[in-house]
Amino acid sequence: MTGIARHLPILEWGRHYDRAVLASDLVAAVIVTIMLIPQSLAYAMLAGLPPQIGLYASILPLVAYGLFGTSRTLAVGPVAVVSLMTASAVGQIAAQGTADYLTAAIVLALLSGLMLTLMGVFRLGFLANFLSHPVISGFITASALLIASSQLKHILGVSVQGDTLPEILSGLVGSAGKANPITAAIGLGAILFLYVARTRMKRALTGIGLAARPADILTKAAPILAVAVTVFLANAFDLGARGVKLVGDIPRGLPVPGLPTVSLELIATLAMPAFLISVIGFVESVSVAQTLASKRRQRIVPDQELIGLGAANIASGLSSGYPVTGGLARSVVNFDAGAQTPAAGMFTAVGIALATLFLTPLLMDLPQATLAATVIVAVLSLVDFKAIRRIHDYSRADFAAMVATVLVTLLWGVEPGVVSGVLLSLALFLYRTSKPHMAVVGQVPGTEHFRNIDRHDVITDPAILSVRVDESLYFANSRYLEDRIAKLVADCPNLKHVVLMCPAVNAIDASALESLEEINHRLKDAGITFHLSEIKGPVMDRLRKTDFLDQLTGRVFLSQFEAVSALRNRNDAGHTQPTQRTDAGKMPLDPSPSLP
Amino acid sequence: MTGIARHLPILEWGRHYDRAVLASDLVAAVIVTIMLIPQSLAYAMLAGLPPQIGLYASILPLVAYGLFGTSRTLAVGPVAVVSLMTASAVGQIAAQGTADYLTAAIVLALLSGLMLTLMGVFRLGFLANFLSHPVISGFITASALLIASSQLKHILGVSVQGDTLPEILSGLVGSAGKANPITAAIGLGAILFLYVARTRMKRALTGIGLAARPADILTKAAPILAVAVTVFLANAFDLGARGVKLVGDIPRGLPVPGLPTVSLELIATLAMPAFLISVIGFVESVSVAQTLASKRRQRIVPDQELIGLGAANIASGLSSGYPVTGGLARSVVNFDAGAQTPAAGMFTAVGIALATLFLTPLLMDLPQATLAATVIVAVLSLVDFKAIRRIHDYSRADFAAMVATVLVTLLWGVEPGVVSGVLLSLALFLYRTSKPHMAVVGQVPGTEHFRNIDRHDVITDPAILSVRVDESLYFANSRYLEDRIAKLVADCPNLKHVVLMCPAVNAIDASALESLEEINHRLKDAGITFHLSEIKGPVMDRLRKTDFLDQLTGRVFLSQFEAVSALRNRNDAGHTQPTQRTDAGKMPLDPSPSLP
Repeated sequence: MTGIARHLPILEWGRHYDRAVLASDLVAAVIVTIMLIPQSLAYAMLAGLPPQIGLYASILPLVAYGLFGTSRTLAVGPVAVVSLMTASAVGQIAAQGTADYLTAAIVLALLSGLMLTLMGVFRLGFLANFLSHPVISGFITASALLIASSQLKHILGVSVQGDTLPEILSGLVGSAGKANPITAAIGLGAILFLYVARTRMKRALTGIGLAARPADILTKAAPILAVAVTVFLANAFDLGARGVKLVGDIPRGLPVPGLPTVSLELIATLAMPAFLISVIGFVESVSVAQTLASKRRQRIVPDQELIGLGAANIASGLSSGYPVTGGLARSVVNFDAGAQTPAAGMFTAVGIALATLFLTPLLMDLPQATLAATVIVAVLSLVDFKAIRRIHDYSRADFAAMVATVLVTLLWGVEPGVVSGVLLSLALFLYRTSKPHMAVVGQVPGTEHFRNIDRHDVITDPAILSVRVDESLYFANSRYLEDRIAKLVADCPNLKHVVLMCPAVNAIDASALESLEEINHRLKDAGITFHLSEIKGPVMDRLRKTDFLDQLTGRVFLSQFEAVSALRNRNDAGHTQPTQRTDAGKMPLDPSPSLP
Repeated sequence: MTGIARHLPILEWGRHYDRAVLASDLVAAVIVTIMLIPQSLAYAMLAGLPPQIGLYASILPLVAYGLFGTSRTLAVGPVAVVSLMTASAVGQIAAQGTADYLTAAIVLALLSGLMLTLMGVFRLGFLANFLSHPVISGFITASALLIASSQLKHILGVSVQGDTLPEILSGLVGSAGKANPITAAIGLGAILFLYVARTRMKRALTGIGLAARPADILTKAAPILAVAVTVFLANAFDLGARGVKLVGDIPRGLPVPGLPTVSLELIATLAMPAFLISVIGFVESVSVAQTLASKRRQRIVPDQELIGLGAANIASGLSSGYPVTGGLARSVVNFDAGAQTPAAGMFTAVGIALATLFLTPLLMDLPQATLAATVIVAVLSLVDFKAIRRIHDYSRADFAAMVATVLVTLLWGVEPGVVSGVLLSLALFLYRTSKPHMAVVGQVPGTEHFRNIDRHDVITDPAILSVRVDESLYFANSRYLEDRIAKLVADCPNLKHVVLMCPAVNAIDASALESLEEINHRLKDAGITFHLSEIKGPVMDRLRKTDFLDQLTGRVFLSQFEAVSALRNRNDAGHTQPTQRTDAGKMPLDPSPSLP
């Protein structure tokens, strides 16, 4: 792929498009459309937006991603976490239901689209790498808990405000008495049905002889069944008149493309949320895309994915939609249903457009509790306590970052949650590398290997201190290196040589170079020679550009064995060291039969 | 050293104190006292404080450091860079010459002392490590330029305000016409004399037969000679009446210990400057102390140094002084003059106290231009253009951080300068580690070594991809690893094995572990087996605590040679791979006579 094709992948796959691929893509599109209709309405409700906005966000964005995205099977559209983040960001600017609220959501999509596109053009995708897995995992778990609890108000038929868990829970507790029993029956019934469908239906269907794939796809269509049944109930028993909140009149017709009028102040307020939404949406989407692509040995190009998602969000904003990204569940359904190319997404867009035009009157009587139930069941599968446990067992630093992310997200909200998680993981990483593992090593008898004297039975020489450092040397650990060597040397009164073993040193920055010079200088003042061993090629290339190797009192040895052999011989010769102490003769090698 | 002695080093050296040590310490104290008198006055002027404050800051702090510090020869007191930082911090709160200005400087010393002490108690000395050498070096060079230009007003006898180079220079240009010619003559004369003394006097003195050490010490006393001569001139010709600004009446008597009344607001405003002053003062001081200690094979303990400097600053604040730290020039003089223990510092304190009591009337007629000249000549030796050049040649990232520090310090001031330097070095470090060096490797014919295929003539096998990664794996580079491997695999259609060679991987965090799982999973989907080789002991210990090794489709090999030998044999057997492709038989090893 070169030139324009690199930025417009449709030119690549479009050339090989034939009837067989078309058939596969069409089937996948029909299935994904059926799945997307209730999801789009539900996520719009989660974002605090009118239901049709969810449908709008599932039309043009899919076409835009199909033109620019590199994944063949990723399905973009509204997703749960991004909807929550939208609600949280926009809720600080205007009240739900106002025109300003909708405008802010649209601006958020446009800003996020521009940021993603710019990040793609300037190849800044690596910024997303600073979101560690534990932070993302903690953030998604906490978001899922927030989302599920925020949807409980629709299940109970009460009204509750708040962006944090304490606010939502105290609101729910305070208004639980006012719950509408019919709404609650519908909501809890739908949750039960969807939960059973998710956990049991596939097995039941294969039990009655259905093949695994159609059983799986039918299972994923359970929400549409819940929608159909509750619409029928609401209509038949006129539940709207009995206090059950229904979706109501959804404007028919397609969105009119256009730009909202915005103030610079609004843009400034939304910039940070838009950035976080962009990065989190990108990370989730790319990980889904990578997983699906590798199943068919295809490749996705992260920087081009940024452009694809950027185009999708710009398209969403231009057509009155809100921020979108690639969703896990729908992409898997798309893939399993046999989608071959991004054309499947474009056909899905046509399906949603048709639904927006002709199906919306049927959804007028849909209880909001049904939508809330689909959201709750969908997001609870994102809560991953096992991951928390696993990370706890694996790494304390990662666990700390994760717990901080979960707690801050639940207690202060989504943006502080992500930011504090990222800052804490960076701080812990820097702390770890600032105190690198260092080991005094000795020779394993009968071999050329050198190992930690605290872990192995090894041979050492009181005149030679061999220290291995297990980290690249840079400013944050260079003074630690100085201190450690100063301390080790102060503890060895008969020392004549220090050898720093560097097999794991991938880089030496200017600070570390100065520290090495300083160590060399100080050891020289103390009459001790400083040597290096096992320096990597690229590091050595760098050192050769400086005068450090000329200043070095000792030598650079290719291997630690070579170093110790050479220095031992020099000491045995007896008079080559100007600073040799009178008692040196009494301290030769530790006796060992395995040495020559 | 254990228990209380660890925190009160005087208990250690005090026990061995005898008459010979006393004599050495006394001689050193006399010499350092003579050197400190003009310096203390000059640095107080630089900080915008009355001259006696410099003397006060050279009495009790020396005693406090003597009790708690671990360096035997470090001389603490007012220093140039900290004086500049004090002027910059306090100047934002009050105008020079007001009581509020003095109070703020005293509070700054107390805050800095408390912070240093707390950092010492909680062993937070590593925080200073995040100031890289290039940032410090750039900061000191920029500070020296700022200091020198700020002192030019005293040399010219004009009045100029400003904390940044553009402000100072435009002020000087604007008021150059109002310069006082006699002041300028004294100032420029003193600069010339001090400069010649610094560069030539030692050689001249040894030329006429003086030994090197006394010649050196006499050279360092040149400022006191400049002071004596200009005081005489000012007095003899009544220069004060001719517009030459003199130091004037310095209050006799010792400072009265006490605490200033402060508001929380003042503390909040000064907290950040106090932190930066603490960290920069600590870094400079420790590096001087380390250098001197290693000349005598002594040790300094960085965390206890924090407590020593903290005590010195608290003592300074309690006795109407301003922030102090260990100075390079005076410590070297102290060391060269033969100081053996911190008692030398305490005797110096007595010397300065006596000077404060009895010598101040003699200094009434001292021209401020003389003090400015001593400051200018002292700080210009801190300007290190050679270091800038050296860092430019060695590392682009370090150079960028240094240039940013220099420019921001000169153009925006000292605090933004340090902060931006630190943030930029961290960002560049994270960026570098987020894109680690990775190499596809092949076997060097006839050896067990594996080297980069782009650099060496090596043997590869189209069914086996050997990739070496030269960095610890953590969240910032784990997705890069996924992407790189996905890309490499997509380019090798006949691949059956991927071996990741990890000799330089010092740690694998939870994110990287998940990425390895993901790589394993994706390769499995593509029918490729994933292996690891040369994993370090501690990393392997960690992996064993997870189920990753059970999931791994391939094996963990001790060496890359072992890995490739085993996999090659497996491929030759022909039917062990379930996903073997039909054309695999046509692609055996690259022909090479050196392989069995």
